[in-house]
Amino acid sequence: MNGVMDEKNCSIACNIVSKSYIDLGCQALARRTKLIKTLLSQQRLPLKGWDEATIELFLNNIALMDSNNYLDKVGMGEREGRVASGLVLRRHFRLSHGIGRSGELSAEQPKAAGSSLLVKLTNCLVRDSLKVAGLQDVGLVLTVPLATGMTITMSLLAIRNMNPKARYVIWPRVDQKTCLKCIIAAGFQPEVVSTKLIGDKLVTDVVAIEKAVSRLGVDAVACVLTTTSCFAPRAPDDVVAVGKLCQQLNVPHIINNAYGIQSATLSTLITSAWRKGRVDAVISSTDKNYMVPVGGAIVYAPRNRTQLVERIDKLYPGRANMSPLLDLSITLLQLGASGWEKALLQREKLYERALESLKSCSNVLGERVLDVSQNPISMAMTVDSLSETERGATFLGSMMFSRSAFGARVIVPGKKQEVGGFQFDGYGAS
Amino acid sequence: MNGVMDEKNCSIACNIVSKSYIDLGCQALARRTKLIKTLLSQQRLPLKGWDEATIELFLNNIALMDSNNYLDKVGMGEREGRVASGLVLRRHFRLSHGIGRSGELSAEQPKAAGSSLLVKLTNCLVRDSLKVAGLQDVGLVLTVPLATGMTITMSLLAIRNMNPKARYVIWPRVDQKTCLKCIIAAGFQPEVVSTKLIGDKLVTDVVAIEKAVSRLGVDAVACVLTTTSCFAPRAPDDVVAVGKLCQQLNVPHIINNAYGIQSATLSTLITSAWRKGRVDAVISSTDKNYMVPVGGAIVYAPRNRTQLVERIDKLYPGRANMSPLLDLSITLLQLGASGWEKALLQREKLYERALESLKSCSNVLGERVLDVSQNPISMAMTVDSLSETERGATFLGSMMFSRSAFGARVIVPGKKQEVGGFQFDGYGAS
Amino acid sequence: MNGVMDEKNCSIACNIVSKSYIDLGCQALARRTKLIKTLLSQQRLPLKGWDEATIELFLNNIALMDSNNYLDKVGMGEREGRVASGLVLRRHFRLSHGIGRSGELSAEQPKAAGSSLLVKLTNCLVRDSLKVAGLQDVGLVLTVPLATGMTITMSLLAIRNMNPKARYVIWPRVDQKTCLKCIIAAGFQPEVVSTKLIGDKLVTDVVAIEKAVSRLGVDAVACVLTTTSCFAPRAPDDVVAVGKLCQQLNVPHIINNAYGIQSATLSTLITSAWRKGRVDAVISSTDKNYMVPVGGAIVYAPRNRTQLVERIDKLYPGRANMSPLLDLSITLLQLGASGWEKALLQREKLYERALESLKSCSNVLGERVLDVSQNPISMAMTVDSLSETERGATFLGSMMFSRSAFGARVIVPGKKQEVGGFQFDGYGAS
Amino acid sequence: MNGVMDEKNCSIACNIVSKSYIDLGCQALARRTKLIKTLLSQQRLPLKGWDEATIELFLNNIALMDSNNYLDKVGMGEREGRVASGLVLRRHFRLSHGIGRSGELSAEQPKAAGSSLLVKLTNCLVRDSLKVAGLQDVGLVLTVPLATGMTITMSLLAIRNMNPKARYVIWPRVDQKTCLKCIIAAGFQPEVVSTKLIGDKLVTDVVAIEKAVSRLGVDAVACVLTTTSCFAPRAPDDVVAVGKLCQQLNVPHIINNAYGIQSATLSTLITSAWRKGRVDAVISSTDKNYMVPVGGAIVYAPRNRTQLVERIDKLYPGRANMSPLLDLSITLLQLGASGWEKALLQREKLYERALESLKSCSNVLGERVLDVSQNPISMAMTVDSLSETERGATFLGSMMFSRSAFGARVIVPGKKQEVGGFQFDGYGAS
Repeated sequence: MNGVMDEKNCSIACNIVSKSYIDLGCQALARRTKLIKTLLSQQRLPLKGWDEATIELFLNNIALMDSNNYLDKVGMGEREGRVASGLVLRRHFRLSHGIGRSGELSAEQPKAAGSSLLVKLTNCLVRDSLKVAGLQDVGLVLTVPLATGMTITMSLLAIRNMNPKARYVIWPRVDQKTCLKCIIAAGFQPEVVSTKLIGDKLVTDVVAIEKAVSRLGVDAVACVLTTTSCFAPRAPDDVVAVGKLCQQLNVPHIINNAYGIQSATLSTLITSAWRKGRVDAVISSTDKNYMVPVGGAIVYAPRNRTQLVERIDKLYPGRANMSPLLDLSITLLQLGASGWEKALLQREKLYERALESLKSCSNVLGERVLDVSQNPISMAMTVDSLSETERGATFLGSMMFSRSAFGARVIVPGKKQEVGGFQFDGYGAS
Repeated sequence: MNGVMDEKNCSIACNIVSKSYIDLGCQALARRTKLIKTLLSQQRLPLKGWDEATIELFLNNIALMDSNNYLDKVGMGEREGRVASGLVLRRHFRLSHGIGRSGELSAEQPKAAGSSLLVKLTNCLVRDSLKVAGLQDVGLVLTVPLATGMTITMSLLAIRNMNPKARYVIWPRVDQKTCLKCIIAAGFQPEVVSTKLIGDKLVTDVVAIEKAVSRLGVDAVACVLTTTSCFAPRAPDDVVAVGKLCQQLNVPHIINNAYGIQSATLSTLITSAWRKGRVDAVISSTDKNYMVPVGGAIVYAPRNRTQLVERIDKLYPGRANMSPLLDLSITLLQLGASGWEKALLQREKLYERALESLKSCSNVLGERVLDVSQNPISMAMTVDSLSETERGATFLGSMMFSRSAFGARVIVPGKKQEVGGFQFDGYGAS
Repeated sequence: MNGVMDEKNCSIACNIVSKSYIDLGCQALARRTKLIKTLLSQQRLPLKGWDEATIELFLNNIALMDSNNYLDKVGMGEREGRVASGLVLRRHFRLSHGIGRSGELSAEQPKAAGSSLLVKLTNCLVRDSLKVAGLQDVGLVLTVPLATGMTITMSLLAIRNMNPKARYVIWPRVDQKTCLKCIIAAGFQPEVVSTKLIGDKLVTDVVAIEKAVSRLGVDAVACVLTTTSCFAPRAPDDVVAVGKLCQQLNVPHIINNAYGIQSATLSTLITSAWRKGRVDAVISSTDKNYMVPVGGAIVYAPRNRTQLVERIDKLYPGRANMSPLLDLSITLLQLGASGWEKALLQREKLYERALESLKSCSNVLGERVLDVSQNPISMAMTVDSLSETERGATFLGSMMFSRSAFGARVIVPGKKQEVGGFQFDGYGAS
Repeated sequence: MNGVMDEKNCSIACNIVSKSYIDLGCQALARRTKLIKTLLSQQRLPLKGWDEATIELFLNNIALMDSNNYLDKVGMGEREGRVASGLVLRRHFRLSHGIGRSGELSAEQPKAAGSSLLVKLTNCLVRDSLKVAGLQDVGLVLTVPLATGMTITMSLLAIRNMNPKARYVIWPRVDQKTCLKCIIAAGFQPEVVSTKLIGDKLVTDVVAIEKAVSRLGVDAVACVLTTTSCFAPRAPDDVVAVGKLCQQLNVPHIINNAYGIQSATLSTLITSAWRKGRVDAVISSTDKNYMVPVGGAIVYAPRNRTQLVERIDKLYPGRANMSPLLDLSITLLQLGASGWEKALLQREKLYERALESLKSCSNVLGERVLDVSQNPISMAMTVDSLSETERGATFLGSMMFSRSAFGARVIVPGKKQEVGGFQFDGYGAS
């Protein structure tokens, strides 16, 4: 009913090594046991991050609660969670059961008490991390082993399940292929709403959205899909205004907050959006936000509207891969609330410093950094002098790549590109 | 342009340790380099499985080709593939870029040459493993970090993209919740076709399928979704007959071959189905078939009809998690063709031995093992004497669970259960 | 005072996941805790070997009892056991305190309860393994991070401490450089006693030993150093006769049993030697006997004469490296009594099979396998036909090397070689 | 003849993934290959430390050059380096051959090219690290898997081999049990020379040493054994003066520099000692100086006098454990010259800060920090007010222990203690 160096075993150990020394050692073990006790009882991010030893100890204990790791198995039949390669088993800390059951992602597995525990705890840790990041009133959080885009697709499929008549997703245009693919993959018609240019910024045209809804009919509209993290000079969508509109029109509202958790500004905006208006689900990537390997996402909803996320939870057909969730749990336990806060602050600073550098650089080149002050993630500068020849501009981009400042994009004017069958003029060049 | 102990470095090492000794050591390294050369040039399962040392060496080399592992990164900007926790990074062999690009799962990533290489190689290894398992004429294979059910959903979404008018999926009834959820999640209407009881077996009613198609109209039918791995006394669907019918009617045909790769019989059936008729995609789980952690699947198509799988490849919105693919590549390299063949044979034997045991056991209990000889995965016995009380039967099941013969199911007659809004009588009791 | 998923934590976990599932998981954990309890209370080899998960769990718990792993260290002062590299720390399971204290190898360390526990347990496990191997009445066992030869040197130094007048070590000749170096390194004069050729075998000349003692004087003789594992045609020394002689003459007797634990015959001989005569210490290598990395040894004594080994324990100046002991503990726990027994049997069989092969081979070549039936470790065949030219014989040896039958030695007649200043005719050619 | 992703394999990979991406990846690999090339050709500490990935890659390549890791071994005969437990094999990076051959620690092993290479490289790295630490004109360095004390014993044994008449080791008194045990273990008589109290410091009485040598006779004196790292108020021995004396008297001089590498002052002193006088060997611990697990040491000599260390190299009977050397190589590669320099600086600063703290604290307590400015490792304060009762003083010590300021020692006046048969008044209380 307990860990391996429990009170009993410690007292036996005193027959081998002096009691006073063993006692010190057992007190040290007890301090770690207490860390885990606090985690289990509070279900929150530990204030101070755990060291690797505690994390491994916890995961190893957890894993041994899963049936694939029971001692003396008969080894017949389905053999849940059986793993052929020791290399594979070890890299998963012997956790092989995946998450969920019969397609309910957060459902418990009778044969995998440890995995089940980890799934629930991780979702609690993530919820807490969102709070630290500035998101208030989070109601339900789901960690899924799906890319951000695929998670948006799942959300749209969940809406279809609730409203089979829906055919359109209203989408304020952003120049990212993936967004469009989310909609198309789910079998919906994207209704692209153009942005307005105000000063240097491209901003949400809320009136145009309202017109689109009334033109298509409320019942035919699956949702409005807004975006917070986009490349400057596009500003984040005005999720507060859209939220109010959706509330008023009774239309679902999904926010693609892919990389936005890193930005306190966006967290405040989203909180405001779901307090003042309607937000059904927000989707964020785990990789960039939490610095884990690519391929996971979280979907979350405010306390006052959790139905859609509950529906998504129950929609996934089959048991899902646990790897992204495991990575997230390790990372959050290792960071702790303080480490996570520090990481958030560093990125804010990094952004500011990079903005300064870009401004200096643009002065030298005779270019100008665009004023997209609402975009806390991406920045843009003009490349007029360079863009005369395509070569000049893409050379700038490739130079930045080879110097490892990843993420630079140079947009060449006038190119056409097809995404999922839809064609845009100057796609990617907004 | 080369590995770390290349010809140059070996020759320098001769200044430190005697040339004759270094030469022996370098020849030993060269034998491993050759293993990898063979893999890269043939793109097939190695005949003999690799040892852990070679696998790790290969993965470590591969990983260092990804940009997140470049030395001396500026460390600014998007920072693709950045990982906060050393524990997390190590468990992924430092591969953090995920798979695919802009949602094309098999697309190459400019910043991740190593990951891109691994993705392509793994799909080749899987294709080869299918051949060893008895599947002939496989055209295209895709490894996806999605549960089997979710992969079926993706396949259905890909069909919708090709045929937006489709509304129904014709589905010969199998008592598994997940199958039904796949269809519903994709936003289709399941058209359930009952099975026929012939002898002890429940078999596919091909005539009923034909009737359903003509009743609903070919254009409205997304596909016929057949199942090979199901619980006895349900026999695997007659995929050959259905394949012929689909060919004739010009209706897509998807096969849910979840656990079927383990069975040579089913592999022969499927090969026959796509040779004699129409098969658009077959979906199999990676966990049970290849003994890896839960949560991955493969989807594959015959040489003569790869369009649907190509479509699925391009449908996934975003970059996906690499973990299931990594597990699969490690496992296949470690098994090699011979180890994989051996594993397949062992399972066939295991099934036979279990069948014998069940027969002996049933004689003692006065029960009878049902003759579902076409079902090479599951077996069934009557529990008439026990089923008078629900307790008796479920007690049998739980006894088998506690003795680790996982996968036993006792079906209690007369229960009703709702799955995704549809209601069946005696669901699970077929 | 206990492990991390103790009764308390398990009961808290029931607030997160269903009690019935958690209970199953906790029972599974309890089974492992019980394994460890049995180890701690019995201090014997587990009957059945432990799996890696249990071993790691145990070592991780043990390590956290050492002060270098205490949470929240001030981190000032000496900082015992501080390790700079995470790579290094992890490979030692975070155990960095070494073994012993102020040069008493088996002494407890106040700051390292876990390490201290492991040292004592390992010595118990080794003692048990010796019993399984056929050694009866073992009194004291010490695992040391020293090569076999260096351990013999330490034993000789311990003898000098007890008898400062001693100057000679009587040593029945064996053709191994190391044996001689042991004696010379300790500052003693080797008194080499020739062997007698009886039939094919070279055997101990007990009478010559007795003569040597009386010639040199009992007080000047540090000990007789016999050898059990040697290359055929040299037979193992007649340790029983020498033991009786040493008893009678009151001269210490040390047995170099380097690779002998693998042989039941030798274990019986040694038991007999210390039952019927005098044996002060037996030294064995850990690498070949227990299949661990090179560089450790065990030194052990019979129940009736443990003084010398106690002295050796107290002689080592400083704290010693724990690595060989850690390897040994892992290996013995993983093998268990049954695995260890099996490994011993396999090697006996391997020897018999190799002997058969050599006989067949020698028939073909027209050579003869020497009858050294008392040597259960090494075998010899004549190479008369080959030895006409040195090339012929060494070619045979190198052929066997390249085919990985390591350990083949071809002795070229008539060569002279100097070892540590002493010169022998035909050294290595006996 | 080369690593696994060599030019050939990279070019083959271009058939699978676009050449431009593979090229980037291969350039990245080449950068690491170059790091290793630089190491092999320069045999010096890399300026900048390596990351874990490069270190692992290097060690994995090295290990595969050893015969225990050859592919397709027959697996008969001695089977050098065979390891039963995968857990053990992995933790040693598959290096299991140990170091040295027939007792020559730095000798190459024909069957272990990789291990042989690592041994030589590590000794080069250590030599370079000594230079960084301020030791000039280092001639020969040997890393040994022995505690500092045991390494001193080995050095004394090597002296005995050169001068069999030697019986005494002249040793300026230091209150450490181990020092005395080194001498006694080697079978020598310690000739203890008292220190002089000058101001607060206890310093070397060079005249007394000279008297002792003439009293005992030069031939009977094995060496003078001085100590640099000792507990304040004992000052480090005046190794320069002793070195000059030894030069003049033709007496060997060994310096116990256990923890002294951390101190630039001591490094300067030792350099001066062997430039101006005679130093035969200096011995330092690896654990505290290089922050590796306990149990290794290095022994080194100046360019002008390497005979003794050469002798030590050839003295060790048997093949030795590689673990401490492996830890040291990993740590030094990871630190690099710059990291090592930084670590040295930090410790100097730490010492100064601790000294400040102790001074403040002593003021509060009405005590005084002793002026032992020549001791750059240890500090001392009076405990007059506390020492009235033994309890008071040891309470202070234990309080410091529980607050993790390890290494505090409280000396209780007037205790007698026996070490190895010699009795001192007030031992440990100097």
